[in-house]
Amino acid sequence: MISGMKLPRIAVTMGDPAGIGPELCLRLLAEKSLQSLCAPVVIGDAGVLARVAEELQLPLPRGGDVIDLAVMDAATVTPGIVSSECGEAAYRYILHAIELAQLGEVQAIATGPINKEALHAAGYAYPGHTEIFAERFAAVRSCMMLTSAEITCSLVTVHVGYHEVPALLTTARILEVIELTARAMHRLRGHAPRLIVCGLNPHAGEHGLFGNREEERIIAPAVLAARERGYEVVGPLPPDTAFLPARRDETDAYICMYHDQGLIPLKAIAFDSAVNTTLGLPIVRTSVDHGTAFDIAWQGKASAASLVKAVEMAVQLSGNP
Amino acid sequence: MISGMKLPRIAVTMGDPAGIGPELCLRLLAEKSLQSLCAPVVIGDAGVLARVAEELQLPLPRGGDVIDLAVMDAATVTPGIVSSECGEAAYRYILHAIELAQLGEVQAIATGPINKEALHAAGYAYPGHTEIFAERFAAVRSCMMLTSAEITCSLVTVHVGYHEVPALLTTARILEVIELTARAMHRLRGHAPRLIVCGLNPHAGEHGLFGNREEERIIAPAVLAARERGYEVVGPLPPDTAFLPARRDETDAYICMYHDQGLIPLKAIAFDSAVNTTLGLPIVRTSVDHGTAFDIAWQGKASAASLVKAVEMAVQLSGNP
Repeated sequence: MISGMKLPRIAVTMGDPAGIGPELCLRLLAEKSLQSLCAPVVIGDAGVLARVAEELQLPLPRGGDVIDLAVMDAATVTPGIVSSECGEAAYRYILHAIELAQLGEVQAIATGPINKEALHAAGYAYPGHTEIFAERFAAVRSCMMLTSAEITCSLVTVHVGYHEVPALLTTARILEVIELTARAMHRLRGHAPRLIVCGLNPHAGEHGLFGNREEERIIAPAVLAARERGYEVVGPLPPDTAFLPARRDETDAYICMYHDQGLIPLKAIAFDSAVNTTLGLPIVRTSVDHGTAFDIAWQGKASAASLVKAVEMAVQLSGNP
Repeated sequence: MISGMKLPRIAVTMGDPAGIGPELCLRLLAEKSLQSLCAPVVIGDAGVLARVAEELQLPLPRGGDVIDLAVMDAATVTPGIVSSECGEAAYRYILHAIELAQLGEVQAIATGPINKEALHAAGYAYPGHTEIFAERFAAVRSCMMLTSAEITCSLVTVHVGYHEVPALLTTARILEVIELTARAMHRLRGHAPRLIVCGLNPHAGEHGLFGNREEERIIAPAVLAARERGYEVVGPLPPDTAFLPARRDETDAYICMYHDQGLIPLKAIAFDSAVNTTLGLPIVRTSVDHGTAFDIAWQGKASAASLVKAVEMAVQLSGNP
């Protein structure tokens, strides 16, 4: 960062107040490695942050580091317990971050962990952040990508039942996910990425032996169209051998047809080190790749590594050095 | 092995003559680590083995190490090429090994790699070894299990299209796979194994949010029934977090609902070191976890490690020390 240039401002939502979000935000604000890279601003409750800072003897945020929405009475929060109040608060932090991004007051958003049960108890029936962002930005095309040093996966379908997947696969949708992923990975890796597109059926259908020829009818045409547009992409490959170590080494990202096709190998290999991003939005949004960890909330045990990575990647993807 | 006791005899099928099977068999027969454990006997073509031994300067098999079915004219085999003749030969080796097992002349079978296209060209429309064995033994209940030091997965459904899986899941079938797996792993590990049963939908359906409640209706009752029978089993768990490293460390085997749910993490983690076994047959059958590798056939590059492991496991599972 050239001296005198303004650092990019990254909104960081505090997540569910009863989870590990508050302590992660406190640790993040104290993280020296970020200070030359960006100016994070936590969207949450200053009272909750103050109480957690005191209980865990973490440094208090400095003025300007927090936008206090004052949703919660900090004294009423019970760590590790699902509540509609906390779900409501977590939702409002997200909405406020989105407004700031829409106004151009932040360059990107990194989201802390929310509890889906709490969100639903508060009356917001979203499967997760991805869907809230897609709806708020009326995103015509978006997709969820999880990325780590070892493996990156983008999902053609996400939070739908197993049986619903085949009907949701279209050549246009797969091509869209290929393009969104290729552009994001180009920015992250600094070179044209090599992508693998997975098949749907065992052995990628083995020339029509298994399944309804989804590989030939739907997936292969998307791969062909993407190649014609200049992307370096192979597939559809048999899903079970696509993730072999030798293939992973030569692949920048996988295009996966359904949630577990991508998330099983991602979590098996990258553990909790992956960052979740929503591609296709007018703004950059990244997220931790773990939950609220209610079992260790407010105990000072949680690592902020994933949130720090999410903020770093938000800076990278938003085009700031 | 106590001196004077007869070593268990393990039939090893040579696999497709045009693949890496013949050279693997030659290496296996020369493998010193097996000599105190068992007496492997290769079911194949002596002429092909002799030609490969000469070309690769590998030791010729000794008398009694090979049962020569004399199906092929060795001079006509072109390594790396799919042919119906080779498919026919590979199929006959398997049938002969099965007959020997049924007669009690071998204690177990370890199968070399076959080429499915060649098998089909010869008129045998099986998806793989598993189905040939299940049919020949008229197995009422059987399942495919892949096992390695790092991870073991058994499959409730195997070679069927993605869309066919939900209709094939029944509580009885899942319970059957749990029991077959628990017994085999008990024998392999020497203690009552801890099993994880995966859900079908993302997040294991998240209390009915995704899917058709397959977890509550079909999978959970199988887990409950298995627990009542004394097996140590948990689930249905969200498939994406089931394979996290910390969970793998405390799990002896996974019960997977479909092919890629098990084979993606297995191959990502255990590479080519896994052994494939068919559980539920009256005899023990194990297999290499790789294909015919036509691209490197008859070049002396192929490692016999997986075949050696398959033979070792055949000995272990057949109850011989």
